[in-house]
Amino acid sequence: MTVQPDPEFDRAIAVTSTSEGRYAGELSGGFVVGGGVNGGYVLAVLGAAVRQAAGEHPDPFSVSAHYLSASRPGRCEVAVEPLRTGRGTSTYSATLSQDGQARVTALATYGDLGRLSDDVRTTAEPPVLPPREECIANDTAPPGMEIPLLGRSEMLVSPDFRRPSGRGEVAAWFRLREGREPDPLALLFAVDALPPATFDLGFYGWAPTVSLAVHVRARPAAGWLRLRHATRNVAGGWFEEDAEVWDSAGRLVAQARQLALMPRG
Amino acid sequence: MTVQPDPEFDRAIAVTSTSEGRYAGELSGGFVVGGGVNGGYVLAVLGAAVRQAAGEHPDPFSVSAHYLSASRPGRCEVAVEPLRTGRGTSTYSATLSQDGQARVTALATYGDLGRLSDDVRTTAEPPVLPPREECIANDTAPPGMEIPLLGRSEMLVSPDFRRPSGRGEVAAWFRLREGREPDPLALLFAVDALPPATFDLGFYGWAPTVSLAVHVRARPAAGWLRLRHATRNVAGGWFEEDAEVWDSAGRLVAQARQLALMPRG
Repeated sequence: MTVQPDPEFDRAIAVTSTSEGRYAGELSGGFVVGGGVNGGYVLAVLGAAVRQAAGEHPDPFSVSAHYLSASRPGRCEVAVEPLRTGRGTSTYSATLSQDGQARVTALATYGDLGRLSDDVRTTAEPPVLPPREECIANDTAPPGMEIPLLGRSEMLVSPDFRRPSGRGEVAAWFRLREGREPDPLALLFAVDALPPATFDLGFYGWAPTVSLAVHVRARPAAGWLRLRHATRNVAGGWFEEDAEVWDSAGRLVAQARQLALMPRG
Repeated sequence: MTVQPDPEFDRAIAVTSTSEGRYAGELSGGFVVGGGVNGGYVLAVLGAAVRQAAGEHPDPFSVSAHYLSASRPGRCEVAVEPLRTGRGTSTYSATLSQDGQARVTALATYGDLGRLSDDVRTTAEPPVLPPREECIANDTAPPGMEIPLLGRSEMLVSPDFRRPSGRGEVAAWFRLREGREPDPLALLFAVDALPPATFDLGFYGWAPTVSLAVHVRARPAAGWLRLRHATRNVAGGWFEEDAEVWDSAGRLVAQARQLALMPRG
């Protein structure tokens, strides 16, 4: 693989400061899925703006987003407001808008993951996935659908991926294209990059995210990530979805939970 | 048990509208624990203000809070701002302050739980707890500590509660005092009412919550609740804690996740 000097993902999340606390960006059409632009990618754009505002606290520790309207490809603005500046962490309010309409609003606590202690006592277990050479690429949209998002990453799934197990769990090997190694902002995208866990229950439609809370727990090591989405409480037309991201060193580097509407289809 | 006309919990979360989008309340000293007022209780006060603002969407569906400074007993103000008003749900920004200092800020999506469909496909399992008559009351503070919070509920734990299992899991039977039956606002408190899951790892100190995201999934049936806290990723001085609340009908009525700092002690 050729490592690009300015990989696609970095171009897609780039923001420029336009005035105090205001950042301009461009939502890439490459991340379109279902009824809009992928929510994890939009969160990474918002997160890139907060990163610029946050200075010595460059890393998202905890980002809690509520989605207000469907994002479209094209220009966007992110307004960032500091709520609390502390020694170890700082907290911001941030809203990404298009044409004056708020798309996603978030509370974001940032810090410096490089300053954390080395202790790790993780009891969670990584997803069970066949070796990559036995996996298949999840890059084919269902007939009649176009899913540009599928081209933004290499996503390798178990050969029995398309047979719903009924467990409500989806897992995959994952990496960005063009040699872009994972970092905390990429994890904001990764936690929402898999197909909804409801696929594994036999529901194949788009599942609109209402809220998404992400914890980034460590800077990921270079290499392939392993992702897992799972739902354990489908009820009343809603479901929760927990996401985990494991890095190539076997560390649980991000955890996320979203509340989403069940697909209509 | 005598049912009080105005139970303690309702008095403690009562707020009064003072002007458009502004509510006044009083944080009760009865909910003090560790370094401040319990974060779930403070969230319930904030949630009571949003409920007043939300009109026909009375129930919290998804509330994402970031804690900015330690709350103290005494007067508080909640400022509520509508961000999106929809047919099924509406989203608000809300900040609870004391003497002009922000204590907790939240994004809150509210709806009407009574209007959801009846389908339930929960695969999660309720916590395993001995029958209540074999449990012991968790109402005794460690020597030298005073924990008013312990008097706000009846909390029944397994007799081996005080021997850390190393699994990072804490469970209890739970109900409010004075016959106050559970409702969605009480669930905002319940998700943070248990001792930290780190107790079960042998760390007994106070674990300050940095962020807390709660999903309320159904109006709870009357009667005892079962609560479970668990952590699966203690690392770098931080831990995540997942909370579940099960009602007397065996339904998973609330799920929450928080990011917290490991106790120093």
